[in-house]
Amino acid sequence: MSDPIVIALDAMGGDHAPDIVIKGAFIARKRFPNLRYILFGDERLIKPLLDKQPGFNDFCSLVHTTQFVRGDDKPSVALRNSRDSSMRLAIEAVAEAKAAAVVSAGNTGALMAMAKIVLKTLPGIDRPAMASYFPTIKGESVMLDLGANIQYDAANLLQFALMGSVFISAVLGVRMPVIGLLNVGSEDVKGNEIVREANALLRHVKLPGLYHGFIEGDDIAKGTVDVIVTDGFTGNIALKSIEGTAKLISEYLKQTFRSSFLAQIGYLFARPALNTLKVRVDPRRYNGAIFLGLNGVAVKSHGGTDAIGFANAVGVAANMIVHKALSKINQDLKLVQDSLQQPSANSQVPNA
Amino acid sequence: MSDPIVIALDAMGGDHAPDIVIKGAFIARKRFPNLRYILFGDERLIKPLLDKQPGFNDFCSLVHTTQFVRGDDKPSVALRNSRDSSMRLAIEAVAEAKAAAVVSAGNTGALMAMAKIVLKTLPGIDRPAMASYFPTIKGESVMLDLGANIQYDAANLLQFALMGSVFISAVLGVRMPVIGLLNVGSEDVKGNEIVREANALLRHVKLPGLYHGFIEGDDIAKGTVDVIVTDGFTGNIALKSIEGTAKLISEYLKQTFRSSFLAQIGYLFARPALNTLKVRVDPRRYNGAIFLGLNGVAVKSHGGTDAIGFANAVGVAANMIVHKALSKINQDLKLVQDSLQQPSANSQVPNA
Repeated sequence: MSDPIVIALDAMGGDHAPDIVIKGAFIARKRFPNLRYILFGDERLIKPLLDKQPGFNDFCSLVHTTQFVRGDDKPSVALRNSRDSSMRLAIEAVAEAKAAAVVSAGNTGALMAMAKIVLKTLPGIDRPAMASYFPTIKGESVMLDLGANIQYDAANLLQFALMGSVFISAVLGVRMPVIGLLNVGSEDVKGNEIVREANALLRHVKLPGLYHGFIEGDDIAKGTVDVIVTDGFTGNIALKSIEGTAKLISEYLKQTFRSSFLAQIGYLFARPALNTLKVRVDPRRYNGAIFLGLNGVAVKSHGGTDAIGFANAVGVAANMIVHKALSKINQDLKLVQDSLQQPSANSQVPNA
Repeated sequence: MSDPIVIALDAMGGDHAPDIVIKGAFIARKRFPNLRYILFGDERLIKPLLDKQPGFNDFCSLVHTTQFVRGDDKPSVALRNSRDSSMRLAIEAVAEAKAAAVVSAGNTGALMAMAKIVLKTLPGIDRPAMASYFPTIKGESVMLDLGANIQYDAANLLQFALMGSVFISAVLGVRMPVIGLLNVGSEDVKGNEIVREANALLRHVKLPGLYHGFIEGDDIAKGTVDVIVTDGFTGNIALKSIEGTAKLISEYLKQTFRSSFLAQIGYLFARPALNTLKVRVDPRRYNGAIFLGLNGVAVKSHGGTDAIGFANAVGVAANMIVHKALSKINQDLKLVQDSLQQPSANSQVPNA
C-alpha cells in the first residue's frame, strides 16, 4: 500500500462551504484512496457533514476555528486580521509539513497573499502564478497566469514560461514542452512593449522546452503549444470567456434537442455518446488552479463550484504529490537558473 | 424602390482575395438587393471572377490598381508607400462620398491607420475602436475594442463605452443599453489602475446608457450587458479565445456523433435541428468588425474568412447605412460631449 497523502482543506472557503468541501473531499478519495485530510473550520458545521459520509471520519482530522476569510476581504486586510482563519491555518499546516498540500475555494487574492508569505516563493521566482489545464483538440495544455498577477513585466512572463514548462514535464510527462506567448498577432512587431520584450527574452534563454513564439487566442483550443504564457489580467479574462462560451454552446445544444420531435428522438439514440461529451466539456473537470512558484503545493478551487468540482481540485493537489512535482520543479528551475547565469553562445541576445 | 447603397471593396485584401471578395459581394446582394459596389484591385484578376456571377457586372464598377497592402506590412510603411493600393483607394472613395462604406479583409493595422488619416475621427474621439457583435444566452451584445488599441488609457475606455452604446442604440434599436467594463473581478478594487480609473469615470459621467460596473469574462456569453468595454489587447484575445472554443466544441460534437452506431442514428434524426445550431454558432455569422469613431463607415472582415463570411461583413456595413447609424452616432456623441462639458450634480467625480 502506498504512503498516505495528507491534504489540508480550508473547509470554510467558497460559496457553498463547508458542504461541498466535505462532499468533494469524500469523492476525491475514490480516485486517490490513500488521501487523508486535515480540515480547518467551524466544527459545529463540519462535524455533522462528516458524519453523513460513511466511514469518512477515519480519514479526517479536524482543527476547529471560527475565523474565516470573506470573499470580498482585501488581501492586505486578510493578511493582517485573519491569522486564525481556516485559510491561514490550512496553509500553515503545509509550511509545518503536517500536510503535503492545501486546497481552498476561498478568496483568491487572500489565498495568494497568505500562501506567498507563509510558504515563500521558490529561488529565482518573484511572483507565483496560477496555472490550470485546458482541453484542446490535441489533448491538454496548461495556461498561466490566470489571475494572480495583474501587474507584471517581461521578466515575470519569462518566469511563468519556466514554471509552466517544468510543471507540465513533471505532472504530464511532456518531455520537451512547446511554449507560446499569448498576443494579438503572431509577428514579432505585434502587441505591447512587455510581450515584445518577453518574446525577445524567451527566444534567447535556454528553456526547459521549445519556444514557439507568439500565439493568438484561438491557438489555446487548437493545442498549438503545451504551455500558454500570459499575464494574470489577460489570462483570467481568456479563461472565463472560454468557460462562458462552453456554457453558452451547451445551452444552445439543449435548446436544439428540445426544438423538434425528431430532435428529441435523435437525442434518445445519441444520449450515451452525448453524456460522454458532457463529461468531456464539463468545466468542473478543469477545476483546480495550482499556484506555481511557491515552496509548497497550494490549489485554488473555483469559489462557486460543487462537490464534483471541488473533488477535481483535490485531485490536482494529489497529482502534484503523487508525481513529486514540487521537488522536480525546484530541481529543474535550479538547472535553468544556473544555465541563465552561465553566458553561452545561444543564451545571448545578439547586439544587445 | 429604395436608394442604392454603394460600398467600396478592397478586392485584394485577405488570404483568399479577390475570389472570396467577389463571391461574398454577390451573396450579400441577396440580403440587400440595392447594394452597388466599387471594386478596387487588379482588373486582370477581378474581371474573370465578376463574369462568373450572372448579371453581377451591372452592379459593379471596377477601379484598376496593381498596388496592394500585404498582410505583414507595418501600418507606418503601408501609410507611406501604398497610396495607390486597393485598400487606400477604397477608403478614399468613402472620403470623396463616392461610396457610403468601405469593407476590407486586409491588414488590420494598415486599414485602421489609413482610415484614421483619410476619414478622420469624430469630434471628441481620440482613437477609433473595432467593435463586433457576440452571441449571448439572451441575444446579442457588442464588444469593443477588439484589437485597434493596444496602448490605451481610462479616457479611451470611456470613449469606447460611449461609442458602443450609441452604436447599439442606432443599429439594434436598444433604447437604454447596459454597459460593462471587462475585468478580473466585479468589486471596485479589482483590476489594474486603468480599469479602476475608467470605472470611476463611467460611474460619474452621464452616459447614453446604464453603467453596470465591472464584468468578468463569463459575462460576455451570459449577456449580462449590451456593451462590453475593454482594451484592444484583452478584447482581441477574448474574441479569438471564444472563436477557438466554439470550434473545439464543434469538433467534439462531430466526434461524438461518429463515436457509435446509435449516435449516428441519433444524428440522422436530429440533423435538421443540428443544422440550425450549426448556423447559429457559425463564426462567419459574426464576421465583420466595424471601426467606430471614424467619420465614415469602415468594416474589417476576418482575413481568413470565406465568401459567406465576407458577405456578412458587407452586411454589417450595409446595416450601418440602412440605419443611418453614422449620423445618429455623431449626434448622440455630440449630446454626450456637450453634457460632459456642463458641470452638473451627477457628472462630477466626488472629491476629485
